[in-house]
Amino acid sequence: MTQLALLDNVRIVLCGTSHPGNIGAAARAMKTMGLRALCLVEPKRFPDPAADAMATRATDVLENALVHSSLDEALSGTVFAAACTARTRDLSHALLTPREVALRLMEAAARGPVALVFGPEKFGLTGEQVNRCSVLATVPANPAYSSLNLAAAVQIFCYELRLAAESIGSLPQESFAPATYEEVELFFRHLEQTLYDIEFLDPKQPKRLMQRLRRLFQRTRLEREEVNILRGILTAAQKERGSNS
Amino acid sequence: MTQLALLDNVRIVLCGTSHPGNIGAAARAMKTMGLRALCLVEPKRFPDPAADAMATRATDVLENALVHSSLDEALSGTVFAAACTARTRDLSHALLTPREVALRLMEAAARGPVALVFGPEKFGLTGEQVNRCSVLATVPANPAYSSLNLAAAVQIFCYELRLAAESIGSLPQESFAPATYEEVELFFRHLEQTLYDIEFLDPKQPKRLMQRLRRLFQRTRLEREEVNILRGILTAAQKERGSNS
Repeated sequence: MTQLALLDNVRIVLCGTSHPGNIGAAARAMKTMGLRALCLVEPKRFPDPAADAMATRATDVLENALVHSSLDEALSGTVFAAACTARTRDLSHALLTPREVALRLMEAAARGPVALVFGPEKFGLTGEQVNRCSVLATVPANPAYSSLNLAAAVQIFCYELRLAAESIGSLPQESFAPATYEEVELFFRHLEQTLYDIEFLDPKQPKRLMQRLRRLFQRTRLEREEVNILRGILTAAQKERGSNS
Repeated sequence: MTQLALLDNVRIVLCGTSHPGNIGAAARAMKTMGLRALCLVEPKRFPDPAADAMATRATDVLENALVHSSLDEALSGTVFAAACTARTRDLSHALLTPREVALRLMEAAARGPVALVFGPEKFGLTGEQVNRCSVLATVPANPAYSSLNLAAAVQIFCYELRLAAESIGSLPQESFAPATYEEVELFFRHLEQTLYDIEFLDPKQPKRLMQRLRRLFQRTRLEREEVNILRGILTAAQKERGSNS
């Protein structure tokens, strides 16, 4: 038994795409591999006839695409998100191959919606966007010319997702409930506030420290109960501080 | 040690491509994966500004592309050729996945030039063209919409070729010399002629029988010496016939 139905749980998130033709070609690439949930974060031009032209008979994917004003919104409700990059210099995250990330995504898709996030054609994702995701993936490429077309990259990842879905068979049910994207983000906000409250966070370099903490917690794929426990600790620390001051 | 240099031995052969943009996008897909030998068989429009535009910084692949008037010409000198198809109904050949065919191509590329052959966008390769190749490969796709863009298909196969080249390490040297495409084709012509001479071939259905025989011998990846032996047998059969008549 394969798990092709799990492909419905995978969102392809395209951030700040410049060329509508690439959105259309990405929709076609998705549909050929059996994916259909397309999310567009601040596309430059959409809808657009160039997108329809490149989608050929995958215009239904475009018609059902959701347009979001932020990556946060597009990741809402997801239990796992992977960022795709052509740049391998940012090694803050674990860097996975398309094959590895496809397996991780399929495992997580059994428990809830997951997302694969792509940046704009020229610049890729910002560091802040990457930090919203749990892992980073890249296509192994010619070091002298690694510039894959956006839709071509989407094609490779969707191809690996289909192979992963075909190969994994029935998954053992994990017993824990994963925290959703929102729950994890609320935890990060709570953490940051607490670190200010207890005067641990350096106001000169707040982002750098939070980035490191994000990395740490993103890697672990937090469970819902763990988030509750951690936030209980934070609340206790905030109270402690309040009673001391 | 990887065998990335073997990618130079892989020809991507595009037959009867209609849209020059697809030729450009295929060139870009090739270069990102480290391939550069592009062969075009009777392209509808080439060179063309649309090809250059889609190739971005892979125009060197287009400039070095060879334009051929027949598939025979494009396969000249190769020791192994694989045909790519979107149609899975023709099951005369062994049908390999991109991953399987990439390994086969890399193994063969250690001994000489190999080719991966793609048909026109709308119709794919003809049966006759497929019969010129040893194996048939297809990308696993959504049965409800399996129409991959040509350049997207090239991207997937080139991606698998790069992974195969990275993974195989040093290959054990095989001791036999493979027959070239021309040697095998001359053998088929000799075989057909002999079958006429000995009145085995049904003049009403010559193609069907030759097709089956082609399949049989293509599967085996003939060695040069085996071709010599087989042709010796054919010559002997022809002489026998001559002396009997």
